[in-house]
Formats: sequence, C-alpha cells, structure tokens
Amino acid sequence: MDLNSDLAEGFGRWELGDDAALLGIVTSANVACGYHAGDATVIRDACEHAATRGVAVGAQVGYNDLAGFGRRFIDIAPRELTNDVIYQIGALRALARTAGADVSYVKPHGALYNAIVHHREQAAAVVEAVRDYDPDLVVLGLPDSAWLELAEKAGLRTFREAFADRAYTSEGTLVPRREPGAMVHDEQTIADRCVRIARGEPIEAVDGSLITVRADSICVHGDSPGAVRVAEAVRDRLTAEGVRLAAFAAPRSG
Amino acid sequence: MDLNSDLAEGFGRWELGDDAALLGIVTSANVACGYHAGDATVIRDACEHAATRGVAVGAQVGYNDLAGFGRRFIDIAPRELTNDVIYQIGALRALARTAGADVSYVKPHGALYNAIVHHREQAAAVVEAVRDYDPDLVVLGLPDSAWLELAEKAGLRTFREAFADRAYTSEGTLVPRREPGAMVHDEQTIADRCVRIARGEPIEAVDGSLITVRADSICVHGDSPGAVRVAEAVRDRLTAEGVRLAAFAAPRSG
Amino acid sequence: MDLNSDLAEGFGRWELGDDAALLGIVTSANVACGYHAGDATVIRDACEHAATRGVAVGAQVGYNDLAGFGRRFIDIAPRELTNDVIYQIGALRALARTAGADVSYVKPHGALYNAIVHHREQAAAVVEAVRDYDPDLVVLGLPDSAWLELAEKAGLRTFREAFADRAYTSEGTLVPRREPGAMVHDEQTIADRCVRIARGEPIEAVDGSLITVRADSICVHGDSPGAVRVAEAVRDRLTAEGVRLAAFAAPRSG
Amino acid sequence: MDLNSDLAEGFGRWELGDDAALLGIVTSANVACGYHAGDATVIRDACEHAATRGVAVGAQVGYNDLAGFGRRFIDIAPRELTNDVIYQIGALRALARTAGADVSYVKPHGALYNAIVHHREQAAAVVEAVRDYDPDLVVLGLPDSAWLELAEKAGLRTFREAFADRAYTSEGTLVPRREPGAMVHDEQTIADRCVRIARGEPIEAVDGSLITVRADSICVHGDSPGAVRVAEAVRDRLTAEGVRLAAFAAPRSG
Repeated sequence: MDLNSDLAEGFGRWELGDDAALLGIVTSANVACGYHAGDATVIRDACEHAATRGVAVGAQVGYNDLAGFGRRFIDIAPRELTNDVIYQIGALRALARTAGADVSYVKPHGALYNAIVHHREQAAAVVEAVRDYDPDLVVLGLPDSAWLELAEKAGLRTFREAFADRAYTSEGTLVPRREPGAMVHDEQTIADRCVRIARGEPIEAVDGSLITVRADSICVHGDSPGAVRVAEAVRDRLTAEGVRLAAFAAPRSG
Repeated sequence: MDLNSDLAEGFGRWELGDDAALLGIVTSANVACGYHAGDATVIRDACEHAATRGVAVGAQVGYNDLAGFGRRFIDIAPRELTNDVIYQIGALRALARTAGADVSYVKPHGALYNAIVHHREQAAAVVEAVRDYDPDLVVLGLPDSAWLELAEKAGLRTFREAFADRAYTSEGTLVPRREPGAMVHDEQTIADRCVRIARGEPIEAVDGSLITVRADSICVHGDSPGAVRVAEAVRDRLTAEGVRLAAFAAPRSG
Repeated sequence: MDLNSDLAEGFGRWELGDDAALLGIVTSANVACGYHAGDATVIRDACEHAATRGVAVGAQVGYNDLAGFGRRFIDIAPRELTNDVIYQIGALRALARTAGADVSYVKPHGALYNAIVHHREQAAAVVEAVRDYDPDLVVLGLPDSAWLELAEKAGLRTFREAFADRAYTSEGTLVPRREPGAMVHDEQTIADRCVRIARGEPIEAVDGSLITVRADSICVHGDSPGAVRVAEAVRDRLTAEGVRLAAFAAPRSG
Repeated sequence: MDLNSDLAEGFGRWELGDDAALLGIVTSANVACGYHAGDATVIRDACEHAATRGVAVGAQVGYNDLAGFGRRFIDIAPRELTNDVIYQIGALRALARTAGADVSYVKPHGALYNAIVHHREQAAAVVEAVRDYDPDLVVLGLPDSAWLELAEKAGLRTFREAFADRAYTSEGTLVPRREPGAMVHDEQTIADRCVRIARGEPIEAVDGSLITVRADSICVHGDSPGAVRVAEAVRDRLTAEGVRLAAFAAPRSG
C-alpha cells in the first residue's frame, strides 16, 4: 500500500502544511506545480526532501488559479488544458531532476480532480497531456473516474486512490465536502479504515452500509490542523498490522 | 552566422509579433517561458513551427512579471532566481519535446538580460540554474557580460550576440534605449551592419567612430512594426553576400 | 440610443483595440478593471480620453483570469464574487475620478456576462456587490437575464443591451459564437440592424423570422479587425437617420 | 500615541497573522490591497472588523508581486507606480466603505516602503498618487524619508512611524534585517522602548548609544510567531503608563 499527500502548497511568503514532516511519513508526494500553489523554491525544497527520503514525486497539476487555490472549476478549452498540464509537469520535472529526484506520476488537484471524474472532455485533455508528453508517467485518481478510464484506454498505467479522512456514500463515491459527515476526524477511526482498505475489507459508508474501496494508494491530507499526527497514526497502524508501505510508482532519481 | 528572434510573446487573448513568419526567417527562436509572456499554448504552437522549420529553440527566461513584460529590474534573491529559471526551462522543454523539438540554449529576457551584464549575483544565479539543471544547454548573451564570463567559468559553452537594430557606443556597448539614436530604423542600414558583423568588419558607432562587434548570432526584433520585413531584408542580404546561416546551437528533436 | 464598447483591454506590453478612436464614436465606455484585462495605466488613459470626450464610464467587471481573458466560466463562491466585483469597481472609480471622470454603470464581461444570464447565484452576487457598494450605479445587461431581473428586484436601475454584430435566434437570444452564422460581418447590414433596433422595428433572426429587440444601448465590438470602421458606420448611419445618441447613464465627473 | 499593524495579508487559501485578534489591540490597520497580498474577501473581512472596533483603515500599497510578497524592489516607471497606487487605494476604499469603514491614510509596504526612503522618483510617484486621487488622505512613513519630505511639500499631512521590534542605529535609521541584532525579540524590552518613544525619551541604539525617535505611531508586527502576545504587551504597558492610544488619522465610516 502507498500513502500519498499533497505537498509544496505554499507560495512565496505563505506556508501551508509541514512538508518536511510529511516526507518522513508518506511514500508518494503530490507536489504542487505553480498553478494552484507552489513557487519554484517551495517545489525544489520539497523535491530535495523527497529525494533524500526516497519518496516518489508526482505532479499535482491544477487549474491556473492561485486566488482560488485550484478549487474552483474553470471551463477551460481542452487544448489549453492539455498544454497547461504539460507546462506544469515539465516545470516540476526540471526542479525535481535538479534536486536528484524525478516525476513518476500525475495526480490532478482540487477542482480539476473532481471535474475529471465526470467531465470527459477535460479528462481526455489531461490524459492527452500525459500520453503525448511522456507515456511512462503513471496516473493516480478516483476509481471509476473518466480520468482513469480514458487513461487506461490511452495505454497509460493507472492507480486507484482512497481517502483516509473522507466519508463514502453507499455507492462508493465521496460524500461532498459541504454535506454533514463528509469528513472523518478521529485519527483512530481513520487509521482503522486504512487498515481495512489495505486488506480489501469493507468499511462503513456514511449511511451505515458496508462497502469495499479498492485502492493502490491512500491519501492523507497535509494542510489540516493535526495533519501530521493523523498521518503518523495511519502509518504506524498500517505498519503494526503488517501492511507493507511502498510507492505505487517507484521513486526515480534525476 | 545565426539569426535569433524573440517568439511566443503573446499571452492568452493578446498577440505579439508574427511567430509563423519569423520562424520562416530565423535560425534560432528565443521562446518565452510564461514568466514575462507566453502561455502554454502560444509556447507549444511556436515550438511546433520551430520543429517543422528546423529552427533551434532557446529558453527566453525572465523575471516573473507579466504586467511589466519582464522589462523592470526585480531585486530577487539569487536562490529564488535560480529556481525560477529552472522552472521556466523545464516548462518550455516539456512543451518543446511534445512538439517534436527540444531546448538547445538559454537567453535571458529584457531586464534580466540587462541586469546580468553587470549584476554578478543574479548572473551567477542564472548560470547556476543552467549548470545544475542541464550543463549541455549552451548560453547566449552580450559579449563581455558577467553572464557569459561566469557561464564560461562554470564550464558552459557560451555564444555572443549582436543587435541588428541597436546603436553601439564607441566602447562596443549598446546605446540605452532612452537615449537619442539608440535604434537603427532603416532596413538597408540594418542589413549592411549585419553583413559587416558577419564578416568581422567594423561598423559605425553612434559617435561616428568605427568598432568591431564579434558575434555568433544576430538578434532581429520580432515585435516592432515592420519587424518581419526587416528580418527578411537581413536574411536576404546575408544570403546574397554568401554568409551561411545556421543555428549556433544545433536544433534538437524531442 | 446609447452606443457602448469594451475598452482598456490591453495589459502591460499588450495592446488591444483602438481606445482613442472608439472614444470618439461611442457614448458609453465599458472599461476593463484589471481582472480579465486592463492594467492601471491603460485604465487611467482610457478614463482621461472618456472624460475629455464626455463619454460615460462603466465598470466592465470580470472573472479573475488574465490567461483566459475572462472568457472561461469560473465556479467561484458568491461571496467571493461579490467582493471581487466591489474591488474592481473601486479600483476603476479611483482612476476614473483622478482622470476627471467617474463610474456611472456596471456591465459584466465575457464568461461572467454569459453566466449571469441564467446562473442565479452568481447573478445575485454581482447584484449584491452593486447594491451594497453604491446603489446609484446603474446596470447594463441582456434583456430577460437573471442579472437584470435580480438587479431590478434589488431596486437598481437597469438598462438593456443589443449587439450590433451578433445574430439572434427567433426567441431573441444570441446565437452562440461557436455556431455558424453567429456573427454579422457586413458593416452596412450591421448599421441597418442598429437603425431598426433604435426605432423599435423588427430585425431578421438567424432563421429568417422577424423579431423585435428592445434595447437602451447597442454594443459595438472594439477588438475585431475593422472594429473602428464598423463602429463609425453604425454611428454615422444612426445619426443620418435622426437617431439621437446619448449615454443611458449620464457621464459623471470625478 | 497610535499603534499600527499590517493586516489582510492572507491570499485565497493562505492565511497570515491573526487579523481579528490584532484589531482588538491596534488603533490603525494597514490593510493590504491585493498587489503584494490580500484578496478582496480577506480585505473586506478585515475592514468589517476594523469598522466594528473603531480602528482606522490605511491603504498598505505595494509592488505588484504576490510571489515576492512585495518585498523585492521593482524598478517600475513612476507613472505606472502612480496609477498602481491609485488602483490599490480605490479597490480598498470600495471594500472598506461597503464594510462601514473608509480609508484614512496610506502606508507603503515592504520593498516600496524601503525604496521611497531614498528613491526620490518612486517617492514622488506615490505622493502624486495620493495628491491627485485624494489629498485628504494622510500619509505614514519613516521620519526623514523622501516619502514624507515630498508628501509634505505636496501639501499632504504626514505622520512619523517607529518600529517596536526593530533595532536603530546611532543615526536613528533602522538596522537592516540581515544584520545581527536587527530585531528586538523580548516583549518586555519592546514594551519598554514603546513607552520611551511615546514619552519622547531616548532609547538605546544597537551600539549602546542613546537616541531619540520621534513618532506619531508605533508599528507592531502581525505575522511573526507570538505577534499577538507582543502587541498586547505593548498596548497593556502603554496603557498602564498612562499613554493614551488613539489613531493618528481618525477612523472614518463609509
């Protein structure tokens, strides 16, 4: 099982999350690429830590929207989205390689992540970016999303993600953040769910029914209060239960 | 002799210069990288044209200042400048490779170009970016600039640039744009000067004295009115006079 | 009848349209406010010309998206949209007043203009901005839009706009730009339609049926090739036919 | 004596400082205007708190440089700087008035603040902005700066600022941040110095000599760790020593 987290989400004077601490915990780092967060120096620092720790680096590509932190859907033309994604992966790759790491995978961020669950035009545009730029990059996303479906059709290797601190509906989709009960806050409950997901055992959905979430990677959030503590609890519990942690996409060196 | 021009300097709705026409004339394209101009789609389009035409692609890196078009000096910390330059080269490289081209060289833009003639800290920061990211990239700049001097010391291959439409002082430096007579406007005069520079013959300085400008590449501007006509005149005259035109940095394919 | 046009849509090095020429033709200037286009200097210059010419100044507020020129829908939260609109109107007002003019009205731009025809949450957010900041500002928009409906309910004075160079459906809505026949190109046809609209006479819809478009202002585009010539043709024809041209919102001085 | 602090310096997802707490302490709020920090919603929230608390609102205008947080000198043309400053004051004023407050004064931020101590062209450009837009705005700055000197010559009312947590040289200038001993960290020492400044008594310079700093306002920083505690200590001590705290520029309502 892989543990991933969003990193390098500061910008200039503004810090967000504790990159150094998280890079001692996770096996894959979704590094922001400058469009929704992450200036070149924050990115390079995160990549240097990742290289030291042997953590895989992924491109956390997003909409061009610093003011909205990439969390607002933008109705961008597919061709422009394709090019914006290539731009971001390339910028990150250059900094990663200079830091002794390299980009192994792509995980879209925020509103783009959510959009390409269903928005087939934008999903296809992101797939095209990865395929045309470097089809050796693997992709991470929500199971049953248009993004993973189209990536697979395009011959890309795909990996499925689960969320440690998000509630699921009985259909196995995420409960939207604005609905009550969307977030799981208790760190022991979160850790329990991770063990079950790692073992392929069912977890409880928001309505009390049991569902099975199949995942190659579990996302632990980095920017909420207590994020590092929760991430540590998840890692410790998984390790204690004998779950081997390893990046789904092998870390590369630059 | 090489002919270079600034390209991909539009942004979103805004166009600047006639990239397609210039790419039929020059041998090296200084492609903007998104910091002073150039969005991902403009960049990719320019790279596709460059690949088709066999024109070498260079990274025209600049300060992060769209509002100022990279023409205002920014007192940025060297470490941040290094990372900003790597970010820009990497973003361009990814789009260039997807377009069937690749980045061969680096030419700083605008105020950064001018700053690193003398500002040794910033010059060293840009040199460090190129050396640490990819020392096979060659660099283009003003003869006797700190930028070329430090690049050479760092083991990078350096090339010297002359300006077809700018007046020179008797010391061989450029007459600042704000001074009278800074620009040469007549296209035949410009073409004449290019032939002399290509042959190593002296040209007339702004005070009437004769100076010899040694250059591996001549810059023709792309965004002034009549730019394409001037560039054509230069190219035609050089060819007519038997000067062979070829990129100083061999075009690469992605 | 009022003639309006979009102005101050350059940004830094990039120019767009011929503001000075258009300000000699129209009676109302929709001045960009820096979010989709228009830096402070372009804005001030346009306001100075408007003041000299006695042209009314309106705030052409848009999404915060320079790269997309405000032409991409952004799913922004209503509260943030309200504040972004107030920010833009205030910034423009300060420059307008310094230039001897003042803001008289508000006309949303691009994707925001289109969104608030139907998107009631965003329409309400823009209405709230105007009402809470300065209810003496009047608003301009598409007849039967949510924007005008909600503005009227909020007690704002509303004015209706017609487009000189856009085709209409038989229901009186605009033919989307991506559909064939969406644009009317012939300047005499455009001028004819303007006269008919000004007189309350029916014009031909895209399917050949006759419709009546009721409008207080006609928009002439400023950034297309030949824009100034078309605008002049419209103005000359209207004047020749005895239509009196005057701003729907009286120009104010700062 | 007035206490001022920088506020509204978050941006989108990123928070900085504790605006609500500081607005319970200071008498003047230097509100960021969106160029170096501060989006429209952060600004409005700060203005609403300021209005409730009766705190004066000032425009903390800066260079257009989010990535550098306005802390990097930019060699901007005076005319553009003038217009950028007007843009920022106007944007803030609209949000302040909607929030029931108004802008009373102008205090430049970061690198602009430092530049206009000596850079007369830029100082004059900022003065021109205030004078041409609204000469009833008063200005705050470093004693003996070009900024205050030129503002006074232009007929503006000027106020002098001291820094509670910065060391002074024996000439009464600030010790540059990068030098040892530049910052005073102990909150009791800071509070002591404030009392002495308020009473016109000498304080100790970095070399141990005694100097007298004349000030109408003392700046307490808002974004350092423990900032709120230090600010409280300063306020409590000043109050205990009988110094009356009041805004140098009377708070206005919108």
